[in-house]
Amino acid sequence: METIITLTTDFGLNDAYVAAIKGVILGINRDARIVDICHSISPQNVAQASFVLGTAYSFFPRRTIHMVVVDPGVGTERRAIIVRTPPADFIAPDNGVLSYALQPYITTSQEAGNINVELSPEVEAVAVTREEFWHSPVSPTFHGRDIFAPVAAWLSLDIQPETFGETISSVAVLPIPRPHYRADGLLIGHILHVDKFGNLVTDIRDTDLPRAGQSIEVEVKGHRVSGLKHTYAEGEDLLALIGSSGYLEIAFNGGSAASFLNAGAGDEVEVRLHG
Amino acid sequence: METIITLTTDFGLNDAYVAAIKGVILGINRDARIVDICHSISPQNVAQASFVLGTAYSFFPRRTIHMVVVDPGVGTERRAIIVRTPPADFIAPDNGVLSYALQPYITTSQEAGNINVELSPEVEAVAVTREEFWHSPVSPTFHGRDIFAPVAAWLSLDIQPETFGETISSVAVLPIPRPHYRADGLLIGHILHVDKFGNLVTDIRDTDLPRAGQSIEVEVKGHRVSGLKHTYAEGEDLLALIGSSGYLEIAFNGGSAASFLNAGAGDEVEVRLHG
Amino acid sequence: METIITLTTDFGLNDAYVAAIKGVILGINRDARIVDICHSISPQNVAQASFVLGTAYSFFPRRTIHMVVVDPGVGTERRAIIVRTPPADFIAPDNGVLSYALQPYITTSQEAGNINVELSPEVEAVAVTREEFWHSPVSPTFHGRDIFAPVAAWLSLDIQPETFGETISSVAVLPIPRPHYRADGLLIGHILHVDKFGNLVTDIRDTDLPRAGQSIEVEVKGHRVSGLKHTYAEGEDLLALIGSSGYLEIAFNGGSAASFLNAGAGDEVEVRLHG
Repeated sequence: METIITLTTDFGLNDAYVAAIKGVILGINRDARIVDICHSISPQNVAQASFVLGTAYSFFPRRTIHMVVVDPGVGTERRAIIVRTPPADFIAPDNGVLSYALQPYITTSQEAGNINVELSPEVEAVAVTREEFWHSPVSPTFHGRDIFAPVAAWLSLDIQPETFGETISSVAVLPIPRPHYRADGLLIGHILHVDKFGNLVTDIRDTDLPRAGQSIEVEVKGHRVSGLKHTYAEGEDLLALIGSSGYLEIAFNGGSAASFLNAGAGDEVEVRLHG
Repeated sequence: METIITLTTDFGLNDAYVAAIKGVILGINRDARIVDICHSISPQNVAQASFVLGTAYSFFPRRTIHMVVVDPGVGTERRAIIVRTPPADFIAPDNGVLSYALQPYITTSQEAGNINVELSPEVEAVAVTREEFWHSPVSPTFHGRDIFAPVAAWLSLDIQPETFGETISSVAVLPIPRPHYRADGLLIGHILHVDKFGNLVTDIRDTDLPRAGQSIEVEVKGHRVSGLKHTYAEGEDLLALIGSSGYLEIAFNGGSAASFLNAGAGDEVEVRLHG
Repeated sequence: METIITLTTDFGLNDAYVAAIKGVILGINRDARIVDICHSISPQNVAQASFVLGTAYSFFPRRTIHMVVVDPGVGTERRAIIVRTPPADFIAPDNGVLSYALQPYITTSQEAGNINVELSPEVEAVAVTREEFWHSPVSPTFHGRDIFAPVAAWLSLDIQPETFGETISSVAVLPIPRPHYRADGLLIGHILHVDKFGNLVTDIRDTDLPRAGQSIEVEVKGHRVSGLKHTYAEGEDLLALIGSSGYLEIAFNGGSAASFLNAGAGDEVEVRLHG
């Protein structure tokens, strides 16, 4: 079956780790269509992988299988999970790397100091435990090749998720950074991601911003920009706009906002609304 | 249909921009064969993208679709175009990024200071305007994903170019750097491109050089090399040869000519012909 | 035919060299499944390419064709070879780049100072000489595109190896680094490879180490680690384990052993066995 399997890892492209994964998948499903999402996640940066996957998965056809291997706990007790959502399947370590992708299907509640995560009923989650689907022997340091890849390949052949292990009702999630209103009325967000062009992607969504009748002023690293532009080619230099994933971005016409501002992930962004 | 679609962008491989494009294409034509030409074009370097595409497109089978997204004017009034040539289709912003690929089909004339560009009659060019083929909503900052990708995918399903918008008779081209003879009889060229090995690819073509009976001396950054070698393994250190794309190259046996000479794109190369 | 063709080169991803190779292959076999193993081999580093291919090829399905173009002698008298082994075909310059992959099929003997290499009878090796299968004209600097790619593509269509040239009985091999016991009883190995995570992969195999009843102490760059861990997440900082390719590795929990130790390929590793 020509199911699409995407790969998101921190393996880089200098070693043959990604190739070994592809070889294992093709050995099980010769017709799988493997598409790389990103292999340049910073080593073991689960939050970054979650964000990058979150910006891409929804553009793939329904029933695509998204496999993520950013897995600092490989070989330990952390679970491997399959999560079937209405549009897509995910297979990943249960370390929060699916947080953005699963956001529409998760309710978190806090009770006596504990955070409880509930998956909505339309989602099926399974802990991958049945070893007969794994590549044997399993290296304790490379579950991507020996567990995730063969399970993704079998899944792409329409083996049902519950075949691979027991159904579970909750999965690990990371807190998704969100802006908040400070006492002085400013909306305070943070830079989530710096892209190749040096554009600063913030955690402020278009839906957090005023629709009409209000103007906006954005401050980051002591620099202010007024108003939202529509394209990177507008404005003299520094500008703000809603980027292609729906987040407020600070960019620099013809250059890198990250270099110009010496700014990076985690830096604070203040938004002032007028009118 | 298993049409081949190639991608040339400046998106790099650290973000999921390229993956989103692939997802959109596969959502429309599940059987498209997507091949990466290059995603490491320097940000917004239209000339470099044009050159890199020019060295590769002719090696693909007839009727391949080459999609290029190096697009500093994204979201502005610059047009998106489809150009159908006898061997291949191209889809790109109308910013000159197809200059090398379209060179065989273009006549330029200068009249009262204006450069006029004529496409030869065997070429069909279309301005992409019909929004029903686009991914909706269109982000003003990511036409690669929302306009070029879906149009390329529909084109790969044999929808005819004129279906996507009105036919046009000219497109933007960049001047293709060419060497010239100086008053003292030297042929003066420039370095176009430095490849991964540090080989210096110049704008001097094999057809610009003498066929027989003449010897050649190349000078770059104060260093001289005599004669043309056939392979990188010949010669003591610095050497000149005709590279695999038909351009004069300066290379260094077992090392990097770019590092040795501290040379890069734009640097001048002088060729002296004897005999 | 949907034969898998893998590519391992030192071409990098900034030029269109790899794309030209893919275009040529698809022009001959439109259904070939091309998978990148690695294009980031250091320029002309035949030993590194041999190692990287060695860690990946065995995970691909039987009858995969592995094409390697790390080729400092391109255009010279060095041969291009096809080697058919029971599980897979290889096509590469005859410069030792297949040493790891062919290790199970090679006997070396030393006689009067010469090293003789014998291929086992189950292996078929051919020197590629019949030009009618090549892309014409052949650039003396890019046999990857003009010889290896078309030959790999024809091979993927089930043309038999002996069709491409004469059968040969030996091929070039590089010495595979192996640890040795020093007079004082220590096992002395070397670092073969540093992976993206900074893990130091040594030439000491799991089979070189004691199975039971003995403890192990590893010393590298003046630092000692005791015992073998199973996963990267164990231990305080520096640790040793058997990596996913069966080699002893030195790693650093949550960081880079290469940076911490300032260690790299070639550095010595001492293993002390107790009990």
